[in-house]
Amino acid sequence: MLYFENDYDRGCHPQVLKKLCETNSVPQPGYGADEYSERARSLIREACAAPEADIFFISGGTQTNAVAIGGLLRPWEGVYAAGTGHIGLHEAGAVEFTGHKVLPLPQRQGKIDARELRASLKGFYADPNHTHMVFPGMVYISHPTEYGTLYGLRELEGISDVCKSFHIPLYMDGARLAYALAADTDVTLPDIARLCDVFYIGGTKCGALCGEALVFPRGAPEHFETVTKQRGAMLAKGRLCGAQFEALFEDGLYFKVGRSAVALAMEMKAGLTKRGIDLFIDSPTNQQFPILDNALLEKLEDKVWYSFWEPFDGSRTVVRFATSWATEPQVVSELFKILDNCRG
Amino acid sequence: MLYFENDYDRGCHPQVLKKLCETNSVPQPGYGADEYSERARSLIREACAAPEADIFFISGGTQTNAVAIGGLLRPWEGVYAAGTGHIGLHEAGAVEFTGHKVLPLPQRQGKIDARELRASLKGFYADPNHTHMVFPGMVYISHPTEYGTLYGLRELEGISDVCKSFHIPLYMDGARLAYALAADTDVTLPDIARLCDVFYIGGTKCGALCGEALVFPRGAPEHFETVTKQRGAMLAKGRLCGAQFEALFEDGLYFKVGRSAVALAMEMKAGLTKRGIDLFIDSPTNQQFPILDNALLEKLEDKVWYSFWEPFDGSRTVVRFATSWATEPQVVSELFKILDNCRG
Amino acid sequence: MLYFENDYDRGCHPQVLKKLCETNSVPQPGYGADEYSERARSLIREACAAPEADIFFISGGTQTNAVAIGGLLRPWEGVYAAGTGHIGLHEAGAVEFTGHKVLPLPQRQGKIDARELRASLKGFYADPNHTHMVFPGMVYISHPTEYGTLYGLRELEGISDVCKSFHIPLYMDGARLAYALAADTDVTLPDIARLCDVFYIGGTKCGALCGEALVFPRGAPEHFETVTKQRGAMLAKGRLCGAQFEALFEDGLYFKVGRSAVALAMEMKAGLTKRGIDLFIDSPTNQQFPILDNALLEKLEDKVWYSFWEPFDGSRTVVRFATSWATEPQVVSELFKILDNCRG
Amino acid sequence: MLYFENDYDRGCHPQVLKKLCETNSVPQPGYGADEYSERARSLIREACAAPEADIFFISGGTQTNAVAIGGLLRPWEGVYAAGTGHIGLHEAGAVEFTGHKVLPLPQRQGKIDARELRASLKGFYADPNHTHMVFPGMVYISHPTEYGTLYGLRELEGISDVCKSFHIPLYMDGARLAYALAADTDVTLPDIARLCDVFYIGGTKCGALCGEALVFPRGAPEHFETVTKQRGAMLAKGRLCGAQFEALFEDGLYFKVGRSAVALAMEMKAGLTKRGIDLFIDSPTNQQFPILDNALLEKLEDKVWYSFWEPFDGSRTVVRFATSWATEPQVVSELFKILDNCRG
Repeated sequence: MLYFENDYDRGCHPQVLKKLCETNSVPQPGYGADEYSERARSLIREACAAPEADIFFISGGTQTNAVAIGGLLRPWEGVYAAGTGHIGLHEAGAVEFTGHKVLPLPQRQGKIDARELRASLKGFYADPNHTHMVFPGMVYISHPTEYGTLYGLRELEGISDVCKSFHIPLYMDGARLAYALAADTDVTLPDIARLCDVFYIGGTKCGALCGEALVFPRGAPEHFETVTKQRGAMLAKGRLCGAQFEALFEDGLYFKVGRSAVALAMEMKAGLTKRGIDLFIDSPTNQQFPILDNALLEKLEDKVWYSFWEPFDGSRTVVRFATSWATEPQVVSELFKILDNCRG
Repeated sequence: MLYFENDYDRGCHPQVLKKLCETNSVPQPGYGADEYSERARSLIREACAAPEADIFFISGGTQTNAVAIGGLLRPWEGVYAAGTGHIGLHEAGAVEFTGHKVLPLPQRQGKIDARELRASLKGFYADPNHTHMVFPGMVYISHPTEYGTLYGLRELEGISDVCKSFHIPLYMDGARLAYALAADTDVTLPDIARLCDVFYIGGTKCGALCGEALVFPRGAPEHFETVTKQRGAMLAKGRLCGAQFEALFEDGLYFKVGRSAVALAMEMKAGLTKRGIDLFIDSPTNQQFPILDNALLEKLEDKVWYSFWEPFDGSRTVVRFATSWATEPQVVSELFKILDNCRG
Repeated sequence: MLYFENDYDRGCHPQVLKKLCETNSVPQPGYGADEYSERARSLIREACAAPEADIFFISGGTQTNAVAIGGLLRPWEGVYAAGTGHIGLHEAGAVEFTGHKVLPLPQRQGKIDARELRASLKGFYADPNHTHMVFPGMVYISHPTEYGTLYGLRELEGISDVCKSFHIPLYMDGARLAYALAADTDVTLPDIARLCDVFYIGGTKCGALCGEALVFPRGAPEHFETVTKQRGAMLAKGRLCGAQFEALFEDGLYFKVGRSAVALAMEMKAGLTKRGIDLFIDSPTNQQFPILDNALLEKLEDKVWYSFWEPFDGSRTVVRFATSWATEPQVVSELFKILDNCRG
Repeated sequence: MLYFENDYDRGCHPQVLKKLCETNSVPQPGYGADEYSERARSLIREACAAPEADIFFISGGTQTNAVAIGGLLRPWEGVYAAGTGHIGLHEAGAVEFTGHKVLPLPQRQGKIDARELRASLKGFYADPNHTHMVFPGMVYISHPTEYGTLYGLRELEGISDVCKSFHIPLYMDGARLAYALAADTDVTLPDIARLCDVFYIGGTKCGALCGEALVFPRGAPEHFETVTKQRGAMLAKGRLCGAQFEALFEDGLYFKVGRSAVALAMEMKAGLTKRGIDLFIDSPTNQQFPILDNALLEKLEDKVWYSFWEPFDGSRTVVRFATSWATEPQVVSELFKILDNCRG
């Protein structure tokens, strides 16, 4: 069986596991005050070129989004997100559970556009009834998006400028940030730290067993630690995330993890295209979305593990093939062999 | 330095770590559908003698409490807890954040009493204004309590009976359940499963890196999985908790973990008492609360790591010494040596 | 000045005021147990042909929506509403504040369609990821809609059938229900009580000083009174709403209020059409939406009070002219005179 | 039947009703922008000697408390209140519904004490675990308290000073403020405006049909209007409260309302004492709490309407007799006659 279903089907990267083993018996204070968390924070500050950054380690992505968004919005505010944004669709209403509305924006390939964002904000304030409406108080973007696409530097700067001119924070969901940073892109981690007010560096889908690093590049809001505790997002053994992120940001492992996965995804993309298979989206990252004949999919069933995405037409389906740090190099050529055999 | 500050200062029990290492490279489905979680659930059902139990693995205790309590209470209800209960004091208002009041009950040594509970419930329904008040919709107990004390079987049955007669669920916070089960007690895990409507088996403080097993012995309420997702309590890599709980419930490790810690705590208790040191509470579990002279505490500062609990009087302080699965046997006698030296 | 800005610019209907004056000095119990509330409930039950109905009087519409929706939804559920629905746009996120998502549905002229609703529900349950999504737990419709349009009996039955087959309640926001019932329609109040699981009969915009009657035709959910208290929706002087609704449902005043307003609106509609003025929407109720030249609007400024709705094109604007129980018959012909003069 | 059950059993004061009748047919803008609300705000600013005050009219007390407290607290904060405070007991958890904890303080006769407040705040910040606890973010007092008692100027200044030194707002629930201002007290409305950060002037229990005036003496927080809308607390016909408060603050009616009720209550108190009837509380306001023999209470049943308060001992009960603006002067002497007859 070939595994392309997602990027979280294995445990953690061997170097991450090694760090957990090496540190296991050392006594450490709890709640994130341990030395691994401290060191991980230093390494992340350095990688972000953000010496003033405050960093919180939280166990999963939905929780990180809910804590960051719900913790920053003021009571009368909601958060803008692409209609396809993860917070609007696949987090079971976690943002609304904190009392705030997700305000949908038009999207193209999972991305929002600075001009449309500005127009929406201007429209809001121009509406004579806006005091009876939810104020847009934050912009949420995912990078890579749910479709694997990326913002270019110009696009990100544009969105950041709009946010600044309306005095609302820009928040980036980086669940798969390793794969964004490793792609053919002009956006670096320091760019993200410079342009976003808060973002998270995903661990769970990028080589950790669990954990996301929520980064406030210019310092966290008041009492944010208590906000994380109140929302159940503070681990007693902060060391679990601390040690993992220490491993991920030592010797550039986080970037290496991304590079191997993206390289294989690009190989997959080229091979699919060469075989005349259409791609639903032109994704530069570790998720590829081929449009496959339903007949072919039936034949793949006991050979390849992939994700159903959406029906394309009566006879074809969009599926997702994801690579990760754990994808062995040879499986992509094995996939091609299987495809070639099945398609006869 | 001797480490008695708490029971979560080390990583995880070596057998737990071994399981994580052994399973690390096996692909598994996400969100708790992995085979380790499935097996851990089976083992827990067996240990609880509760073949119908539904079990959810959640990363930490505050989150488990908030999800269980907030997920079960109906909008007009609150939860009873001892005034000293963890949910009322040290979880930063996580229950209130879900919209529900914690209703304080009188306590003795951290425990509530069935008769007082019944009187409070009767008083509530007898109050002609009770429709303008928060309905008591659940009873929360911790076992061991925050003071290390335990409910006896008779006490637990009494509380359970009151809950049944008022048709409200009994919820047990078992953050340190391993230490309760290993103590000199007549309460077994099957008793807990029989008498409680929902409880959690603590992992974080009992040998895991993270994770608590929330158990509904007679089946979970409708769509509880979505409730956990909505509240950020569902890990993508459910295997992380699954594998750990599989290790903890294989070959009785969870009970072994408790026994070694409690045995050392009893040794500590006996030695303290022998030395004429008063104990604030008569605790049969892994937490001991000696009342120490402030002068002595100063001398211990660079030798023993313990927790401040509360001032006792002008010259003495209550402190907490906790043992755990990780406490090496010899450190208790080393502690006595240090105490004897310091007290001259 | 002619007043067409809205249907709540005056106090209350003279018969409502008379009732308040007549009952003012009679001592009554509080919190809705007064005899006027009791009698109003009887009259409403009769008018709805719903002898088992439970009825709660709540001071305003946004609050009624939030209490009804937030009080009925279970934690994992959201509420479907037309994208133009009042709860999604102009209630400042009151539903989200209760922790629930508003799930937008396609709309035409403010109305949703039974087939699209069914397709959305089927699509939800067919989605393999739906346990990670907000469950649709209620359908919200407004009648009249925000555009003054009405559901026909067939349409309403269709929506009700879908709700029944998916076991979710149908909720109708009847802020302007008097104007719906008085229009050229085949939907009666007993139809609404039969087809909806809960709905409110608007008072504020239909002749009362304040107050909406929330009706559960087949009985309210458990402890709903406490839910209203918890959400600040229970008036100490329940008599204030009780007496007003008693007046509105005595001698058919509520229907009379609607008829006079709708008759004048139809006269206005005919006159506008006759003058070649386009209507944005074909509304059969008390709100009319002419598309007027911006030049004309400037001339009207100190003569007619109306509501801005939305820009139509570079030179024209959609405005709203509303009649109410308080609109004097002659003002419609006065409006025509002014229009004729201004348009020269 | 003599009516002493509460101070909201009648409609509104005749001058309030007169104002509603006089203004009924005048068209006005909605949502609090009407001229009566504007004038009422001016009159209240003047009466408070607070020219910068922002004032919001809200329909009832529970809602006002929930909006003021929930709207001002930051996510990590709770509100201090006397254990007997209305928000902690008889508002069905309305504050918790907004996500915040009510932190109980010791009380005497319904009042909290500045020194105990300071000690609690110091204790909180001295606790090494306080970042895991709910931060005290506001102080709630009721004046008169639920027991009819009053803070003296010295006491109020003391509490205000503590709040200032800990940078948390002081909030006064003035549901019955008219009766406080009319009592034998050294606290004036300008004192309250000077010493509190926010408070409400009760209408419902002081002569209005509904409505409370929430006053921010030094200006409201940002977007508070939207916060009221979001929480269902903004009436479309703001004029309903506006006109009533205009009447109440014209020609000193609010003070007159209080004076007549308090004078009768003092007459009642003197008469009860003279007859050897013990009072549970020494209340200087319109609520009196005699301790009556159960045998006597039975005899009063069809003659006097009063409130049950709490059992005193096996044979006696604390009851509440309330006067109001509507209490006719002769009923107090009639009460004495009945008491004298019944006690034989």
